[in-house]
Amino acid sequence: MEYETPLFFHVMQYADRADRDVIDMVSGNPDWEPPQALRDGLREYADLEPDQFQYPPSEGLLELREEIAARRGVDAEQVVITNGAGEANYLAMARALERDRGDEIILTDPVYPYYPGKTTMLGGTQRFVAADDEGRLDPADVREAASEETAAIVVNSPNNPTGAVYPEETIRELVAIAEEYDAILVSDEVYDHFDLSGEFSSALEFDSDHRIVTNAYSKSMAITGVRVGYAIFPPHLVENAKSRHMLVNVATTRPGQYAVLEALRETDPDYYEENRDLLRKRVATFTDALDAAGAEYTTPKGSFYVMARFDGYPGTLENVKRLIDEAGVAGMPGEAFGDSRTEWLRFALVTPRVEEAAERLAAYFD
Amino acid sequence: MEYETPLFFHVMQYADRADRDVIDMVSGNPDWEPPQALRDGLREYADLEPDQFQYPPSEGLLELREEIAARRGVDAEQVVITNGAGEANYLAMARALERDRGDEIILTDPVYPYYPGKTTMLGGTQRFVAADDEGRLDPADVREAASEETAAIVVNSPNNPTGAVYPEETIRELVAIAEEYDAILVSDEVYDHFDLSGEFSSALEFDSDHRIVTNAYSKSMAITGVRVGYAIFPPHLVENAKSRHMLVNVATTRPGQYAVLEALRETDPDYYEENRDLLRKRVATFTDALDAAGAEYTTPKGSFYVMARFDGYPGTLENVKRLIDEAGVAGMPGEAFGDSRTEWLRFALVTPRVEEAAERLAAYFD
Repeated sequence: MEYETPLFFHVMQYADRADRDVIDMVSGNPDWEPPQALRDGLREYADLEPDQFQYPPSEGLLELREEIAARRGVDAEQVVITNGAGEANYLAMARALERDRGDEIILTDPVYPYYPGKTTMLGGTQRFVAADDEGRLDPADVREAASEETAAIVVNSPNNPTGAVYPEETIRELVAIAEEYDAILVSDEVYDHFDLSGEFSSALEFDSDHRIVTNAYSKSMAITGVRVGYAIFPPHLVENAKSRHMLVNVATTRPGQYAVLEALRETDPDYYEENRDLLRKRVATFTDALDAAGAEYTTPKGSFYVMARFDGYPGTLENVKRLIDEAGVAGMPGEAFGDSRTEWLRFALVTPRVEEAAERLAAYFD
Repeated sequence: MEYETPLFFHVMQYADRADRDVIDMVSGNPDWEPPQALRDGLREYADLEPDQFQYPPSEGLLELREEIAARRGVDAEQVVITNGAGEANYLAMARALERDRGDEIILTDPVYPYYPGKTTMLGGTQRFVAADDEGRLDPADVREAASEETAAIVVNSPNNPTGAVYPEETIRELVAIAEEYDAILVSDEVYDHFDLSGEFSSALEFDSDHRIVTNAYSKSMAITGVRVGYAIFPPHLVENAKSRHMLVNVATTRPGQYAVLEALRETDPDYYEENRDLLRKRVATFTDALDAAGAEYTTPKGSFYVMARFDGYPGTLENVKRLIDEAGVAGMPGEAFGDSRTEWLRFALVTPRVEEAAERLAAYFD
């Protein structure tokens, strides 16, 4: 069995090995500071008694689950602490498929490539629904694609790679469609702290037995490598998800959970606001330079990414490598995100050098 | 789909909630100190630049993989850093099953209960081969059980729960059987640093395309909660395992990997020897007291566990709870480890209070 392995690590490796200075805009790795309290939490943890180095409860440290539950308005029993949003989405999709209500997973095109990869690995099949040019999803298209074969609808808002933010009506409709077809809406909200539009709506706002919400601290706390996330399940779906989590990972790393709890408690809202401001400035800088370069692009309403199109330069892996070698800018090939974006490239705004990158692109495509 | 969720966390929770002082001998959580360099590594990590808080390579930090490869005499490309031995075993068993050479997993009875649980979750079926009273496995019995349906043979030496250590001839034979039947030997060696007999033999000593070795730092460094382990695959099996690891977990926690690397480099062999000595003393103390109590038991040659049998007191979950409430000693029910040990209880020697525990048991069964 071959899975469709996401290309991110492959492209990053290629960029790392390049013979020249490359501006890395490949992956959603924040380049800004984690919260001070996160660092403090790790330091504190290092001095704890030996018993604190041992297995936490499999579903996560109770205090962390309670903190999350209080913030999200759910019961702590519904919360499973995971190895990042990656495991959270894996558990959610597996949980939907093992209900035996069908083996189809509805995904968007463009799509975050881990979703189709997980689908194949879990024995499901993908059914893609096209988003529009701005990345917006029309629930009517999802309803048309839904059937008795639908196990889950997996969406991501704020969206990677399009930067779209789904409005409340879209999320409400997606929950309704999941209910109609006895399917599960999996709402991956890992970029919720990077809503630049004010229009973000969490699926938790719509109480339902048919939605699972996934999230992580990877982006909001700039700690993609620490691997702490969570999934919130409806009460009747949570037990099997906890079993799978236990059988796959036993538990999520405890120093990470400890430090995240500390950071959740001690970090001021300013921290998140400052990072959003930084991102807003980068979006403006990068898109201004893209304008100057005559490129087509989407202005993100959220998340970290700008998709851009340069005339006569399709978004293939080959072209991405050429851009690394010849322009010194590393992005992701649009073809990695689905058939609808094969002409496009995705650039992650996670470097202070966005202006320089845009200038390099402008010079290269001049 | 219902998995067979291991009972460990359930029993630990019951013991935690008991109204009296309980000596915890449930789970394999070391109560001794992690290496000093492990703590130092976490502290150092807390001060690193933001880029060090981001995704490590999916298969693990290169320096850690190289360090492991050098110690184990394999190529770094064969090493995947995992979320503990739990994920390592999950990847190994999944890799064996997806070869489509059969869906049977040969396991021992008694068995570490995560293995049958993982088997069910992965869509395989269990076939049990009985170990003898001391936990020894006769390869002839494994060969008799093997067939074209065999996807994998999963063994654990030093063994949990029996304390058996398989000699070189056994491991050699198991590798040969895996080769004969085009199956995979999965050798879980997480207790390798707790061989008290000097008879431990790693499956890596027998070069083969048909064996996967799993391990972790959870026991050897007394850090079950940090979640860093690894699996070593034959070259032709490793790519799909890396894909699954990426699709399930993206990567393994980076502060943990960093601290483990530091501890691997800086920890003196004395650290491990002292922990073995501690365990040897506890085995002697506990078994002496069991003798005094007239109990039957096995003296472990490795790992952390003593299995004991008290007349007229079968190893049921109900009896384990009674022992918690009435004697103040928490163990694991033998029935959790398979049909052959339903009369037995398992006690983990991970408390300085082993003598007191044995005295409580003696008094209770008097």
